[in-house]
Amino acid sequence: MILGRLNHIGVATPSIDDSIAVYRDVMGATAIGEPFDLPAQGVRVCFVDTPNTQIELIEPLGDASPIRAFLEKNPAGGQHHLCYEVPDIQAALAWFRSKGAKVLGEPRTGAHGTPIFFVHPKDMGGVLTEIMESPREQH
Amino acid sequence: MILGRLNHIGVATPSIDDSIAVYRDVMGATAIGEPFDLPAQGVRVCFVDTPNTQIELIEPLGDASPIRAFLEKNPAGGQHHLCYEVPDIQAALAWFRSKGAKVLGEPRTGAHGTPIFFVHPKDMGGVLTEIMESPREQH
Repeated sequence: MILGRLNHIGVATPSIDDSIAVYRDVMGATAIGEPFDLPAQGVRVCFVDTPNTQIELIEPLGDASPIRAFLEKNPAGGQHHLCYEVPDIQAALAWFRSKGAKVLGEPRTGAHGTPIFFVHPKDMGGVLTEIMESPREQH
Repeated sequence: MILGRLNHIGVATPSIDDSIAVYRDVMGATAIGEPFDLPAQGVRVCFVDTPNTQIELIEPLGDASPIRAFLEKNPAGGQHHLCYEVPDIQAALAWFRSKGAKVLGEPRTGAHGTPIFFVHPKDMGGVLTEIMESPREQH
């Protein structure tokens, strides 16, 4: 496998609205998407474009949201995961498993509408890593 | 200020050598720099290229290293900061101060040899943020 482009950095926040204000007013972001719910993942997300990648703001959705524990440990929010693109999600899944990396669950549809999976931070230098099939529009 | 490109994601690690092995053997990175010491910052660093940005691996250097506390809280390592480029470090410094964001110390020379400063996570949605003057070679 060849390291793909960094699609986004996932940043957990207790309030997407407050974080949007920081990216818009302090950081000068000019391309900020509309926030939307991902009920199957238990999160509400919003993408902020930088010139070369994206920030994915992530707010808990529902009591069982998987990012609640992260926000309990980091109440102000913070960097949650890194997401890299791959051309073929099934090939990537087989690759990570062959390397002995712990894949969390089965591939599912991610925030960009393509299949994704997560790899446990213990096998990735402490970084929760999302692997995402590239959107076809980019090819 | 207009949001600049994401120069790198700083990832703290207890062992740059172990992290290099992950990026090379599991993630498939093909462009990994030589690690080098930054004694003035109390860190040893190594840059790993992705197609569109870089990962800065950061290992403590010396007992007073500013990342020791982070590694005590996150012994396996993890995402430490995000670094954005600006065209003019002094203009950016004045901007962040005008927005009431807490700048940590004065500008100093960063790992890429250009002036940098850090902004406290409390004013940046929980993300420790490095602001870096773009290397001139890129222009």
